[in-house]
Amino acid sequence: EIVAALSPPQASPLDGVRVLLTAGPTREPLDPVRFLGNRSSGRMGYALAESLSDLGARVVLVSGPTALPGPRVDALVRVETALEMHAAVMSRVADCDLFVATAAVADYRPERAADGKIKKSSEELTLRLVRNPDILSEVAASTPAPFTVGFAAETDRVSDYALGKLRDKKLDMIAANLVGAERGGFERDENALSVYWSDGSRDLPMMDKTRLAAELAALIAERYRERHVAST
Amino acid sequence: EIVAALSPPQASPLDGVRVLLTAGPTREPLDPVRFLGNRSSGRMGYALAESLSDLGARVVLVSGPTALPGPRVDALVRVETALEMHAAVMSRVADCDLFVATAAVADYRPERAADGKIKKSSEELTLRLVRNPDILSEVAASTPAPFTVGFAAETDRVSDYALGKLRDKKLDMIAANLVGAERGGFERDENALSVYWSDGSRDLPMMDKTRLAAELAALIAERYRERHVAST
Repeated sequence: EIVAALSPPQASPLDGVRVLLTAGPTREPLDPVRFLGNRSSGRMGYALAESLSDLGARVVLVSGPTALPGPRVDALVRVETALEMHAAVMSRVADCDLFVATAAVADYRPERAADGKIKKSSEELTLRLVRNPDILSEVAASTPAPFTVGFAAETDRVSDYALGKLRDKKLDMIAANLVGAERGGFERDENALSVYWSDGSRDLPMMDKTRLAAELAALIAERYRERHVAST
Repeated sequence: EIVAALSPPQASPLDGVRVLLTAGPTREPLDPVRFLGNRSSGRMGYALAESLSDLGARVVLVSGPTALPGPRVDALVRVETALEMHAAVMSRVADCDLFVATAAVADYRPERAADGKIKKSSEELTLRLVRNPDILSEVAASTPAPFTVGFAAETDRVSDYALGKLRDKKLDMIAANLVGAERGGFERDENALSVYWSDGSRDLPMMDKTRLAAELAALIAERYRERHVAST
């Protein structure tokens, strides 16, 4: 008991825990040159991957295209499209204990990508888009499912959407942020999050993304351990 | 005459020439998060802007969003959409002698951008796109028009398309490269170009983009001076 009291009780709260984390945007090609993209920089996800590593986790990061240097993780898998990210995640989900989906995955992709560059010939163009698979829902519905953490980037009614997503997708936690606001969110250095789980929530106020990632990682570890202890 | 023979005849062949150059991709928003983009990194344009500066030109660079550090130019104007690039160029075209369009400007933009993030509700989505203005053609058709250099990034039949564009848009020069090939083009460190003008052409073989930019700048200066001397 004295030894326990002397050692830092949570220096490595995720020691040996296998984390699979997605980050960055996806790009959905229209042709070899053009694509549908989004404003995710990957910064929050990369910072969170490193923070989870710092807590002892073995982290595999599946990343869409970003301009960031490779982070300190155990493995980095680079993908471009939502379908590629889906394949990279689903082939690894059986080997993870904790899944964190920070990536801004395109909900839709062009029905088909042209082999050659589309020539501009008309004043208007109609683009048919089809739904991409919902990676987060599939992971949360897998058996056995890892502890699953989602992100919600919303422009309004943030808590409504986030709580709906937590429930509908059967997530263990969800972190919501307001994008398109003056400060915070995509392409910014700082951010604020509201984090929800089935019977609780916590607000992490506006701060530098690196510090925010460390606080969120600690909160994920706390919830993960509570679940892990409760279920064994 | 002795003095002339001793001084390097073309150390600053573009001394005092006012250059307006566009570079990078444009992004056409679908909503606050999603956009239509393209794979232009801006590297070739930034390198060319610096090479033209090195030849004595006063360079104003109008740049779409890139991950590059700001280049050595006299002024840098940052824009995001094709409409913003169009406005930034047309308001400055009367004050330039030489216009170089390296930017990969989106030919189409979504008919309207949603104020809030589009919610995924259906299996399919139809996106209506409308044409963006053709900046290069407008500049070449302005009176008096600057010496106008275009770029063509094509995936096939490169020389046919490039020569068609040179003629149809009434350009003074066009530099064509093959994108989507194994080496060269978007997102690569090296590139090769075929450069055409009304009565001649030159191939610049595969090389590092910085060196290629220097060779292309020298060729532009040569053609610009020939025209300038011929017309005065």
